[in-house]
Amino acid sequence: MLRIPFDKLFEELQRVFIKLGFHENNAEIMARTMAENTCDGVASHGLNRVHMIARQIKEGYVKVDAVAQKAVSFAAWEQWEGNSGPGVLNAHICTDRAMALAVEQGIGCVALRNTNHWMRGGTYGWKAANAGYLFICWTNTKPNMPPWGGLETRIGNNPFIFAVPYKKGALVLDMAMTQFSYGKLETMEIRGEKLQYNGGFDTAGRLTKEPREILDTELGLPIGYWKGAGLALMLDIFAATLAGGRSTYDIGQLSDESDVSQVFLAFNISKMAKNNLSDEIVSNTIRYIKSVKHRNPDEDVLYPGERALRTRNDNLANGVAVDEMRWHELRAM
Amino acid sequence: MLRIPFDKLFEELQRVFIKLGFHENNAEIMARTMAENTCDGVASHGLNRVHMIARQIKEGYVKVDAVAQKAVSFAAWEQWEGNSGPGVLNAHICTDRAMALAVEQGIGCVALRNTNHWMRGGTYGWKAANAGYLFICWTNTKPNMPPWGGLETRIGNNPFIFAVPYKKGALVLDMAMTQFSYGKLETMEIRGEKLQYNGGFDTAGRLTKEPREILDTELGLPIGYWKGAGLALMLDIFAATLAGGRSTYDIGQLSDESDVSQVFLAFNISKMAKNNLSDEIVSNTIRYIKSVKHRNPDEDVLYPGERALRTRNDNLANGVAVDEMRWHELRAM
Repeated sequence: MLRIPFDKLFEELQRVFIKLGFHENNAEIMARTMAENTCDGVASHGLNRVHMIARQIKEGYVKVDAVAQKAVSFAAWEQWEGNSGPGVLNAHICTDRAMALAVEQGIGCVALRNTNHWMRGGTYGWKAANAGYLFICWTNTKPNMPPWGGLETRIGNNPFIFAVPYKKGALVLDMAMTQFSYGKLETMEIRGEKLQYNGGFDTAGRLTKEPREILDTELGLPIGYWKGAGLALMLDIFAATLAGGRSTYDIGQLSDESDVSQVFLAFNISKMAKNNLSDEIVSNTIRYIKSVKHRNPDEDVLYPGERALRTRNDNLANGVAVDEMRWHELRAM
Repeated sequence: MLRIPFDKLFEELQRVFIKLGFHENNAEIMARTMAENTCDGVASHGLNRVHMIARQIKEGYVKVDAVAQKAVSFAAWEQWEGNSGPGVLNAHICTDRAMALAVEQGIGCVALRNTNHWMRGGTYGWKAANAGYLFICWTNTKPNMPPWGGLETRIGNNPFIFAVPYKKGALVLDMAMTQFSYGKLETMEIRGEKLQYNGGFDTAGRLTKEPREILDTELGLPIGYWKGAGLALMLDIFAATLAGGRSTYDIGQLSDESDVSQVFLAFNISKMAKNNLSDEIVSNTIRYIKSVKHRNPDEDVLYPGERALRTRNDNLANGVAVDEMRWHELRAM
């Protein structure tokens, strides 16, 4: 691991995105998002993913000049056409639009079709919560998880994000429907360690804690078994229906993961009565859960987003921890 | 188990709810909901729960004459005051109101405070989906689940419902945040069987498959471990903030579970472009997941709500399966 100052990481990313064909202001948004994702400890959707974005631009899945446009509007709910543009830019546009709609309508729902990978869903949660909104968003994906009872990938791991403003730093839950991410499985495999809990199925359809076996079958375990599988399916159907876009089934018919559907839902709590209630509720809840009898005295009880905040503060103070190979790869781009 | 014709179950429930002090039309709504819950295989929130409603009315937690009223309104988002009325009636009112709002605003969000147990959340999902709406709702609860890393109940198991219209019968996901319900734990204990997967913690804080140990500690396992714990916490903060009501922490300060907060979110898909898209998406998705290679050839791959629909059809054809003791208890009320 190298430690790179945030600004240096940002500038290097900005240079690369300009070289990839992004307009200057869009390159800045791309670079800031990817630098922040890396800084928050999610390099898998930051620095380590730049080469994939470059490949998808080169192959034409991601249209570097395209941008999301409003397609259909009905008061608090709008459908946007993503035009196969860069997922990060489209998601920023739709997050902003959901918040603007919420200013007018109390809540704003923007459903986006034909967009690309938004990298880290938490990006948009942190953004909206820091701007004072309660916020929910989710995306569908290609088929990358088995339905309950099945041994082939037929549903998406559809990340689901909830965000709440909080004076000490927002609460942001950013969770995929698989128990462990592929990034986590790869890390554990490199370390030669087993997972602490079953994380997927082996070739015989047995639950396993061996990361290699799951990486081979690509059959990650849905959280809560049948429950997470059901939730993933519903998030997909909602996203595709609300956006008038592609479902996981439809995406699976394409040659690569592209043209996904997403939902952005903002709640304008500042305009409702008792507008400091959220902070009071959050403060009480955090105090309450942290004062619980601990299962392991050395292990903290954390609220959603607390670990990301700690990682961010450490990386801002000491330089962003980056994989040396990925950093040199970026420098050479 | 006895088999009671649906109409007979309904009429007996109606008689009891009138006797408990409900107005005639409200008694009918209560009776129909509790009969349908039983008929769908959720007697734990139907017939078997009538005595609890009776107790809560007697003790004054549930005000049999009170009804939810609009408190604050902001375009697509409304806060309703539940006035400690019967949870089932209040939830029906707010489901209807969310759908009516969605007719005007594209989406309708009704957040309800100071209400009581809505029994089965799926009730409102089936209702809205059958009326043609995409629908999401959730409730908070008293503290009845441990936060991740804790060994005391400090968060709620906050049932979360997603519903989608479908020509062959709606898709309805109705899931609490614990891996197994208390009803399931009790059933398995009576049968002397272990759970198939870990379902909670024993007194030493170890994961266990023994239903008795979990019933004793009351430490049910959140789905997906830390993920379900995080989701439960966020659902609670959203419900309390959106409704201007009590959080799980606040409810825990009361002498019984009452005055909970709920959210009802309806999407008016019939007014948006491509309005038959939902059915097409659902049909393709169901065909796709059912054609998967099965882990166990004897086990079906089901969509959310499919089991409830099968149970319903069986109970309608052959009489609703009810616990004999509970049936006689109802008759004696």
